[in-house]
Amino acid sequence: MALTKKPVTGMKDIQPAEMQIREYVMNQIRETYKSFGFSQIETPCVEHIANLTSKQGGDNEKLIFKILKRGEKLNLDAVNEENDLVDSGLRYDLTLPLSRYYANNAANLPKPFKALQMGSVWRADRPQKGRFRQFVQCDIDILGDATSLAEIELILATTTALGRICPDNAFTVRINDRGILKGMALHCGFPEESMDQVFIILDKMDKIGFEGVERELLESGYAETSVSQYMELLRGVGKDADGVRRLGGQLADVLPAQVSENLAHIMDTVNEVAEADFGLEFDPTLVRGMSYYTGTIFEISMEGFGGSVAGGGRYDKMIGKFTGMETPACGFSIGFERIVTILLDNGFTVPGEGEKVAYLFEKNVDSSTLAGVIREAMEARKNGVQVLVAQMNKNKKFQKEQLEKEGYTQFKEFFREGLKG
Amino acid sequence: MALTKKPVTGMKDIQPAEMQIREYVMNQIRETYKSFGFSQIETPCVEHIANLTSKQGGDNEKLIFKILKRGEKLNLDAVNEENDLVDSGLRYDLTLPLSRYYANNAANLPKPFKALQMGSVWRADRPQKGRFRQFVQCDIDILGDATSLAEIELILATTTALGRICPDNAFTVRINDRGILKGMALHCGFPEESMDQVFIILDKMDKIGFEGVERELLESGYAETSVSQYMELLRGVGKDADGVRRLGGQLADVLPAQVSENLAHIMDTVNEVAEADFGLEFDPTLVRGMSYYTGTIFEISMEGFGGSVAGGGRYDKMIGKFTGMETPACGFSIGFERIVTILLDNGFTVPGEGEKVAYLFEKNVDSSTLAGVIREAMEARKNGVQVLVAQMNKNKKFQKEQLEKEGYTQFKEFFREGLKG
Repeated sequence: MALTKKPVTGMKDIQPAEMQIREYVMNQIRETYKSFGFSQIETPCVEHIANLTSKQGGDNEKLIFKILKRGEKLNLDAVNEENDLVDSGLRYDLTLPLSRYYANNAANLPKPFKALQMGSVWRADRPQKGRFRQFVQCDIDILGDATSLAEIELILATTTALGRICPDNAFTVRINDRGILKGMALHCGFPEESMDQVFIILDKMDKIGFEGVERELLESGYAETSVSQYMELLRGVGKDADGVRRLGGQLADVLPAQVSENLAHIMDTVNEVAEADFGLEFDPTLVRGMSYYTGTIFEISMEGFGGSVAGGGRYDKMIGKFTGMETPACGFSIGFERIVTILLDNGFTVPGEGEKVAYLFEKNVDSSTLAGVIREAMEARKNGVQVLVAQMNKNKKFQKEQLEKEGYTQFKEFFREGLKG
Repeated sequence: MALTKKPVTGMKDIQPAEMQIREYVMNQIRETYKSFGFSQIETPCVEHIANLTSKQGGDNEKLIFKILKRGEKLNLDAVNEENDLVDSGLRYDLTLPLSRYYANNAANLPKPFKALQMGSVWRADRPQKGRFRQFVQCDIDILGDATSLAEIELILATTTALGRICPDNAFTVRINDRGILKGMALHCGFPEESMDQVFIILDKMDKIGFEGVERELLESGYAETSVSQYMELLRGVGKDADGVRRLGGQLADVLPAQVSENLAHIMDTVNEVAEADFGLEFDPTLVRGMSYYTGTIFEISMEGFGGSVAGGGRYDKMIGKFTGMETPACGFSIGFERIVTILLDNGFTVPGEGEKVAYLFEKNVDSSTLAGVIREAMEARKNGVQVLVAQMNKNKKFQKEQLEKEGYTQFKEFFREGLKG
């Protein structure tokens, strides 16, 4: 019986050329993050369904690939709802499993714990170009550090990694703080209970612009004076650390001075010591959707590429949900698939790849000659050369063209009467 | 709400120390296999349920983690059987997805195609010590090569990789051919239709020995003359290439000479050119369970470790099931988790890891001193040093002991009044 040849809907087979780039990017990320003292861990791809549906994951919880119970636990006669059928699912991010991992292992881990995770996650999103239902995330998280050193090290580590991987692409780190976000709205007279709605509208800034945000706020019934004061405040903010300090002064009625000073200090320090060359901007319109963020939030955008290539922030309340003991936490996630797409689009070739040589031998060569060919290949391989040993095809020209596509730059030919080429 | 802290049943969180070893082993395998001209590919972890249950997977098909249909496709009111509920599942090996991949991509791939895959697979096995429901497999396969060059290169590549990863563990490659296996039984008068049963008994050799196999064959009702001739033949076989050739002569009544000559040739060539130092033995009792093997089969056992650490063979009929066009194929799979276990048990430390230094600064150090500490860390990181920047704890002695456990061998301390340590 002939079977289905295509991958399942929304997922893809990865070809050798892309695989090389993926492995290269992973190694660069891993090596950079290790130099910053992050320790790599891994959790299972499968998580408890109760954990996955615990309201930490926002909309992602609607996109879970759920796994059927097995054996006696599956009783088809007593099914009332979907959740009677499943006991687990594929993880939709690496943050929830990290929280579970930390809750389970904290006693044996250094404090603070600096975690690196690289792994696939799954979301049953509507299939669309360039977005897949299985994709890799690369996260670093610092657990147990309430100071701004966590933010500084996360931003330094991620910008160093991106600077090494994409040295030709300019990028900008935009940074904000949930406290400032809220302070600006409160200062302008938006009521406390309207915060979520205001931020959902503000978050559309990059799509609908200032005018669009202003219009939607007015249409939602907020006071004209609040809206106009808010727009003026947003437009007038300085994007550097001094701008943040000045804004802190303006918000003194609603915001403790330490919040703006903390953010300004992060920006000062990162600017002073960063290895990579990038822009660092305070962005008062940066919201980041996930409800679990509690403080600093940040995002990186890359020139010529719509959308962000990395994002993260502080989430001091999440780990406590598992452990019952509050643990400050801060994380940064690189959009691995986006970086790979940018490199593929740039025609990037992986540096430092060994020489690739094809040894082609004539059909029906005697076995001692073939043994000699393989022996020679083994010697070259020891010296770091990638050697393919293959029988010469009838259409040798076509065969060589195909091998050239695979990166083979040199050919050596072996014939029945001995070595020629 | 406090959530479940443990991983799902039968799966495990991987700690930093094991992660380092896993990454090291993967890199060694990848680099070695690349030098042999293998190209890395990746398929999704999720496969069509119809493919997974197509009778290619033997008993593994009973162990599939099945994934629930989503949205409108899931109709709980019209459920008669399990398969109405699911559309996909987690792959239980890398061979079935490779067949699907090749069927889908053959036109764009070189012939023969040398594939490398490293990835997780899932089996809902009964949980037991040291065996997990998610584990990594590392497979190489050569598709489209009917000659013994495929076997030779697979064995050379795998033994080279194992020799580099475990240089202190002696290992032995045992090799057989399904044709010889069958020929020996036919030659002794076992009926053609009894082959499967005879091999299931023979496969118990390492557990029940010659006497046990002999007893079970007799108990199954086979002719005494057949059984005694079979046992004599099995005991008398020489384990080197010449032994294979002599056996080929004895089996001339039931086996074409080229089968034994082919196997002897593989052994001769491997012995002549191998990089690693290992034993290579013809093993007429080697069966390997999977029904898809059609020719040569092989397995590697390592000194001091029960069970095999790698195995594979030729499966010339499987790809055709997808493509409708027969494609010779041969593969070798390293038992990645077993190798990692052996290294962990040996107290293995990953070579070539950079120096690890912890920079500890006193609490409430002023921000310009802290910036100086971070600047110094950034410089050291550029030079390949792994630097952790952390606040000094009250119990500095305990903190250092913990960091030493994490591999930090050097400490530098920074105090409020300036640099001391």
